Amino acid sequence: MAKPVDKYEKLVDLAIRRGFFWPSYEIYGGVAGFYDLGPLGVRLKEKILQLWRDFFIRRHAGFVVEIETPIIAPSRVFEASGHLEHFTDPIVECRRCGRKFRADHLIEEKLGIKAEGLSIEEMTRLIREHDIRCPVCGGELGEVKKFNLLFKTTIGPYSENVGYLRPENAQGMFVAFKRVYEAMRQRLPLGIAQIGRVARNEISPRQGMIRLREFTIAEMEFFFDPEDPGHNGLLDELLGRVGDTKLRILRAEEKEKGADEPSEYKVSELVEERIVANPWLAYWMAVARDFIKALGVPEQNMYFEEKPPEERAHYSAQTFDQLVRVSRFGWIEVSGHSYRTDYDLSRHMKHSGQDLRVFKQYREPVIVKRKMIFVDRAWLGKTYREKAKKVLQALQELDPESAEKELAEKGFIEVAEVRIPADRVKIIEKEEKVTGKRFLPHVVEPSFGVERLLLVTLDYAHRERDGRTILSLPRYLAPIEVAVFPLTRDEKLVAKAKEVFRIVLDAGFYPVYDDDGSIGKRYARVDEIGVPVAVTVDYQTLEDNTVTLRDRDTWKQVRVSIDKLVDALRRFLNGADIEELGTIVDAGVETKS
Amino acid sequence: MAKPVDKYEKLVDLAIRRGFFWPSYEIYGGVAGFYDLGPLGVRLKEKILQLWRDFFIRRHAGFVVEIETPIIAPSRVFEASGHLEHFTDPIVECRRCGRKFRADHLIEEKLGIKAEGLSIEEMTRLIREHDIRCPVCGGELGEVKKFNLLFKTTIGPYSENVGYLRPENAQGMFVAFKRVYEAMRQRLPLGIAQIGRVARNEISPRQGMIRLREFTIAEMEFFFDPEDPGHNGLLDELLGRVGDTKLRILRAEEKEKGADEPSEYKVSELVEERIVANPWLAYWMAVARDFIKALGVPEQNMYFEEKPPEERAHYSAQTFDQLVRVSRFGWIEVSGHSYRTDYDLSRHMKHSGQDLRVFKQYREPVIVKRKMIFVDRAWLGKTYREKAKKVLQALQELDPESAEKELAEKGFIEVAEVRIPADRVKIIEKEEKVTGKRFLPHVVEPSFGVERLLLVTLDYAHRERDGRTILSLPRYLAPIEVAVFPLTRDEKLVAKAKEVFRIVLDAGFYPVYDDDGSIGKRYARVDEIGVPVAVTVDYQTLEDNTVTLRDRDTWKQVRVSIDKLVDALRRFLNGADIEELGTIVDAGVETKS
Repeated sequence: MAKPVDKYEKLVDLAIRRGFFWPSYEIYGGVAGFYDLGPLGVRLKEKILQLWRDFFIRRHAGFVVEIETPIIAPSRVFEASGHLEHFTDPIVECRRCGRKFRADHLIEEKLGIKAEGLSIEEMTRLIREHDIRCPVCGGELGEVKKFNLLFKTTIGPYSENVGYLRPENAQGMFVAFKRVYEAMRQRLPLGIAQIGRVARNEISPRQGMIRLREFTIAEMEFFFDPEDPGHNGLLDELLGRVGDTKLRILRAEEKEKGADEPSEYKVSELVEERIVANPWLAYWMAVARDFIKALGVPEQNMYFEEKPPEERAHYSAQTFDQLVRVSRFGWIEVSGHSYRTDYDLSRHMKHSGQDLRVFKQYREPVIVKRKMIFVDRAWLGKTYREKAKKVLQALQELDPESAEKELAEKGFIEVAEVRIPADRVKIIEKEEKVTGKRFLPHVVEPSFGVERLLLVTLDYAHRERDGRTILSLPRYLAPIEVAVFPLTRDEKLVAKAKEVFRIVLDAGFYPVYDDDGSIGKRYARVDEIGVPVAVTVDYQTLEDNTVTLRDRDTWKQVRVSIDKLVDALRRFLNGADIEELGTIVDAGVETKS
Repeated sequence: MAKPVDKYEKLVDLAIRRGFFWPSYEIYGGVAGFYDLGPLGVRLKEKILQLWRDFFIRRHAGFVVEIETPIIAPSRVFEASGHLEHFTDPIVECRRCGRKFRADHLIEEKLGIKAEGLSIEEMTRLIREHDIRCPVCGGELGEVKKFNLLFKTTIGPYSENVGYLRPENAQGMFVAFKRVYEAMRQRLPLGIAQIGRVARNEISPRQGMIRLREFTIAEMEFFFDPEDPGHNGLLDELLGRVGDTKLRILRAEEKEKGADEPSEYKVSELVEERIVANPWLAYWMAVARDFIKALGVPEQNMYFEEKPPEERAHYSAQTFDQLVRVSRFGWIEVSGHSYRTDYDLSRHMKHSGQDLRVFKQYREPVIVKRKMIFVDRAWLGKTYREKAKKVLQALQELDPESAEKELAEKGFIEVAEVRIPADRVKIIEKEEKVTGKRFLPHVVEPSFGVERLLLVTLDYAHRERDGRTILSLPRYLAPIEVAVFPLTRDEKLVAKAKEVFRIVLDAGFYPVYDDDGSIGKRYARVDEIGVPVAVTVDYQTLEDNTVTLRDRDTWKQVRVSIDKLVDALRRFLNGADIEELGTIVDAGVETKS
């Protein structure tokens, strides 16, 4: 591999060399859009997901839960969700060499214009007008077509049972909504989260870990009553915690006017001025900001960008992308925040024929006035005999208001090809006690691309000091928590260090042991993968049963008794300064070794 | 739903009602072989996986790691692994109605014989001979064919780029072996674990959660040196910890003789008597036993059954299934333990053309005697001119041993259509210093079906007492850790209980709050889902700031000061008896409410 030049290349070099991630199927020449996570990558991902669960689920225990649904779904699900129709990218094929390209990307590259949102006819026209040709062989391009990004398969032995891999977790939550709602004792609001693999059959993915064909999404569908989103003070309580804090937002209308810098808005402002279409959307955006901050991203390096209508997914009434600035790629989207309204539930209700509405009991029954049509049944039977039943039914289906109007205007009502005169029919207003109503909850959705979170976290942790790489991950995200070293390979030190390693392991930490090479090299090796603290056994250990603890970030060292080691490590990993754990024996100025 | 009768039905009723699991896509009539995990199911699964990681990975930190590879793989991977050829079930189609069936199951049902391992020709013959017909329409059945169980799809826009969903995680570890080996600094042994979704396109899955088309596998490929499996004492150290313990084993040869009860063997015995083909296989089986015990399964309700050769997967030299007895289904397989030798690596090496061998440095260079062929080059050049080069090359490719023999017998060596006389060629023995060797590691694999682990765990936790259901999950597996209740809906008690809930939440527990219905009903509600401890705020709380803690399993209650609540809960969840936490105020005899 060539020597890495920019920060991103250094990061990728580190990722492959030490085992965070690498392209999948390398021995077979690789397949674009697929990445493996290595040993450190899996542990970092798990810690990021634990944090996500803490922010989005556990802290909202009682009304946010997590479920897991399959990746493979029958075609009916994506007919209902609209993905079979809308989840497409424009594709164009070279008539000479047969290569296929994303038409919008080709147009953007050649013409320098924005092609997102153009119809396939417009794209074909642009290709013809500007004589855009195959970038590989120079051949003529065909018509632009829609390419569906769902991976297709067959479920079971019958070829007509088509299934698809989900492109988002969301449909699992919508299809199972009623079950979860019942298990959660029919209460709203209800957040249903899911963390899982999704697959999108991108035409020609580039950008490494940024655009994958298979990846992990951490997503929540938050169901609430659109007529009463406050839910007995819960919304106010939660907004109360974040209302005064500010979010950096770039609104679609500002962007259209030429703005490219976000402005700061208080969360309460976003809600009151309806800049964000729904208060719950604003609340979860504030949580998303706090979560991304906890990954180590400073607030000035993130903002939310509202998508203009033509760029929104088909299900969304408003969408904000959460963007984070990273080396090499600039601003990348790490999460999307959509107001999906009742789009999905209403589609599944229609396509499945199942009633997905929830029942809202009014606090007190409501008296509703309702007009009803009464007809002289004896007369009706005598007059129309076998036709009477049909007439009666037709009368019942009439709208009483328009029937009353017709009666007033014409003196009769005409139904089922007969005329009912005014003296045989009456419109009477009655009072009715209604105890509640059925309705479809509305939904806001925060949705995170987990591999991107991993990349962002690594990007912000990556530091250099004295020519060495330090991965200054937040301590709670460190894949390996503690390193244990003997100062040298002296048999006695090695034996003692292995004993200490065992103590640390038995206490539940995730440690690493290393006795290979100089102590300086070993410190450098664990700094590079973000191990927050290194425990070293030296000759003094053999005398007084103390070890040194070295802080990855300050390189300061303190001596701690082995009896108090587990406690000291816990405190350190929970955020204590190294100085709080013992007496400083090294102020942190290391020489390269 | 009809009233549940047997334990399994009660379990399924509980699972659906309270949110552990349910069939997927119910609103669309369901799709066989797919299940959702509900809120409690996901949390239970996560805790089971944490435990698995602890047993198999963390406790072996340093030489066992976890990776994550994609679910979708290009066809080359499964050509190499043998799955395209071997991963099939026999299928037969009705010639009248077109329905398809698993041929072996049909034969087993109709003839009461074991059909596993029969060829498709033999199955067709049996169907013809016994006139087995379509069980639905009575029509004639066609020929038995092989049905490949891999879900097929296309990667990207070119239809020739066929991909499949993995049926096991294993190939991901084999394909990426070299990368992980490098990142782990080229050391053996090396365990590479993976937890992830797999898909098997079963012909007609039944048995609910037991046989799924998509499920989660927790798997490890453990790579070691087959010539030196001891690895510097590591094997002995680990076997030392489990060697005296016993495993219940039913050997294939015993079973063939008619035995259907397992016998007990010490792990050391299994290794020494080579009952288990490889000591590492035996070690990981012992870990598997301990892990399944930790889920709450007593040892007498599990054993390992060796698979007879005809039932083993194509890659395995020896396989043991770990069986657990559950209600309704009897003995079910929860894990498989296979000795995969170097089958997979050698296949991928061949199919990819990449050298997947590792280099073993000998402790000291080895002097190897090697015969070599020396020819008189000057004579060769003069005699054969332009052909000399070809002759020389052919000579170098000769086996010196057989060349020496030929020379002794004939007085010349014949190569490349020329004869080299004895006076122009010599076979000389030389000594060579060899520093190490390249070889393919061997592999043993423990592999667990995670949804089955969940079912087994629930089955063993399910108890009844006084007509109530108690889910006596091990405390470390409880989906919800703490319940917080006000004794009644008295405003003051509710306010105080919410304060306590907040304390518990902020301390990092996963709690539930409930004030709906009588306190007895609420205890019953949390007993049923296995919440280990309930904290109740009553009128005494308002006076002396103490609460009651109630143990799910004994129903005993103690009073604890709120100041000490977090500590008390931690101790209880870590295994302390309720009596250790405070004074008993209720001996655990509850009346039904």
